[in-house]
Amino acid sequence: MAKSPENEHPQKAFGWAARDNSGILSPFDFSRRENGNDDVTLKILYCGVCHSDLHIVKNDWGVTTYPVVPGHEMVGLVTKIGSNVKKFKVGDKVGVGVIVDSCKNCENCQQDLQNYCPKAVFTYNSPNFDGTKTYGGYSDFMVVHQQFVLQIPENLPLDASAPLLCAGITVYSPMMYYGMTQPGKHLGVAGLGGLGHMAVKFGKALGLKVTVISSSTRKQAEAINKLGADFFLVSSDPEKMKAAIGTMDYIIDTVSAVHPLVPLLGLLKLNGKLVTVGLPEKPLELPIFSIVKGRKLVGGSDFGGIKETQEMLDFCGKHNITAEIELIKMDQINTAMARLANSDVRYRFVIDVANSLSK
Amino acid sequence: MAKSPENEHPQKAFGWAARDNSGILSPFDFSRRENGNDDVTLKILYCGVCHSDLHIVKNDWGVTTYPVVPGHEMVGLVTKIGSNVKKFKVGDKVGVGVIVDSCKNCENCQQDLQNYCPKAVFTYNSPNFDGTKTYGGYSDFMVVHQQFVLQIPENLPLDASAPLLCAGITVYSPMMYYGMTQPGKHLGVAGLGGLGHMAVKFGKALGLKVTVISSSTRKQAEAINKLGADFFLVSSDPEKMKAAIGTMDYIIDTVSAVHPLVPLLGLLKLNGKLVTVGLPEKPLELPIFSIVKGRKLVGGSDFGGIKETQEMLDFCGKHNITAEIELIKMDQINTAMARLANSDVRYRFVIDVANSLSK
Repeated sequence: MAKSPENEHPQKAFGWAARDNSGILSPFDFSRRENGNDDVTLKILYCGVCHSDLHIVKNDWGVTTYPVVPGHEMVGLVTKIGSNVKKFKVGDKVGVGVIVDSCKNCENCQQDLQNYCPKAVFTYNSPNFDGTKTYGGYSDFMVVHQQFVLQIPENLPLDASAPLLCAGITVYSPMMYYGMTQPGKHLGVAGLGGLGHMAVKFGKALGLKVTVISSSTRKQAEAINKLGADFFLVSSDPEKMKAAIGTMDYIIDTVSAVHPLVPLLGLLKLNGKLVTVGLPEKPLELPIFSIVKGRKLVGGSDFGGIKETQEMLDFCGKHNITAEIELIKMDQINTAMARLANSDVRYRFVIDVANSLSK
Repeated sequence: MAKSPENEHPQKAFGWAARDNSGILSPFDFSRRENGNDDVTLKILYCGVCHSDLHIVKNDWGVTTYPVVPGHEMVGLVTKIGSNVKKFKVGDKVGVGVIVDSCKNCENCQQDLQNYCPKAVFTYNSPNFDGTKTYGGYSDFMVVHQQFVLQIPENLPLDASAPLLCAGITVYSPMMYYGMTQPGKHLGVAGLGGLGHMAVKFGKALGLKVTVISSSTRKQAEAINKLGADFFLVSSDPEKMKAAIGTMDYIIDTVSAVHPLVPLLGLLKLNGKLVTVGLPEKPLELPIFSIVKGRKLVGGSDFGGIKETQEMLDFCGKHNITAEIELIKMDQINTAMARLANSDVRYRFVIDVANSLSK
């Protein structure tokens, strides 16, 4: 018989978990493995609240096994290293993102695309290779194979760096892969949440002209003044949308609700590229005439590999990029989740784990 | 008042036209302009029957102005050249494809992408810059601006070369643009009609492994033995489709009926590319999980520019590639159109214009 979460590993651990599809989180005792030769243990300081956390605690995708401790945007301090670990030392500022292990042998792993490894071990709600289950970053500490630990640049504040580990890499990776990087080109960012606001920052750092495409004017001033977007386009304004037809080279579509692609594809020039990183639960309608007549493409992308995640973090260090966050205490998480469900956050909740995680 | 088709230009011309959305074609007297300084006149020898011809004669896209003379895959002999024409001489074997003019000044024209010029003049059913209407290749001769005339390689039979002008370039161009050219990679070709069978030939000439994806086994032997495909996958066989999941690098989707993309996208590996060149009249369903989780893209493409069309013809000359055709007489066109509507053609009808066009 399987051991209980509290007893399956030798180290006592503590976090907050959802027990059922109400999604309500509450204190939870569990355990973690000893630090192995290739492992790094980190004390978790901050953990971002990703929209996937919300989907998983509510079992929206039908894959949740309760109890589930969410959290895959964590930063912290190294407290222990294994004998084979040379890249990290105790006290280092490190981060862990969406995955904590992979097979390391397949074609994808060999190309530093561990995120697409068919055996990738996700940071929470995923089977470990030893058969136990992974628990995420809404918890006191973590033991992770060294290959899945990232260095956080010295100059970046740790709390606002946490969302880089998922929101950041999820928009950075497709911008690199699909070549949405040519200075002076025009990037549209559809949806201004955790992912979208990072896309605006990356776009500006790359020298792109950036337009935020949003359903209302609510975030207009902030998008321009705070995030540095060049333009703000309200998708519900038919006149403005018409005037913007054929003006954009790239669009990052971060909208996770079902939405029409036709208006977005219309904004693209010839050879325009639209990349979807949101995950609507139903298929979208793809207008074939639009992509054929304008040689446009619709591409997907799913966060990023470890090497590229480190590159993204280094890019952020160089350009002084972090997320805009609302720092919350652990016991505010259920309110934060409710607000997140209403897109009421600017632009990412981050849990002040070390200062507020208590029984 | 506009002049009649017979009198608007000085040169008497003759072809077959549809008069209404029955799509029935019959003999038609009209006229063509004098050969200008930049023009080439060609006597039409052969003209391919494209699926677009069928759509237009029946006004499926709602854009047809009758009478319409279809045909945009023609080859013939130069009979006259203007004083500015240096590239062609009388007697040259030449071809004309989907467009006969463009603005020549816009960004797209400057990049040899006249096919995407907003003012492109299509070979038939399109307004010319002088306000008259274009009539296509189901006719005795044509007067075309020299920039839109192609050289047919000497070694290629003229009748089987005609379909290269549309079917050929329509699959060749996206294979080049989307980089579906790496020898040893695996190309799936969905739909084995005029476009699909050209994609098989180009794929093999490029050194790709080619699998035809078709709804029945009807064309299996021919696909392998005659066209040189490596494999044949029946899309209605769930076992075979399952076994082929994740095996292809590229797919050219030539299916012009509404069809599900999920099974095709499932056949692609990580980073796989699916390009649609058919034009279903309704949007297709785009499964976002599939493209996100496998970093796949769905792209469109619409025939090709003049420079690339010449490159494609030269590639065909070098690799001895032409279409598989059924040569018909002009007065068989209505039967041929009916068969085309049932996908009953291997693989392109070509009209023996010069030998069968009589009043």
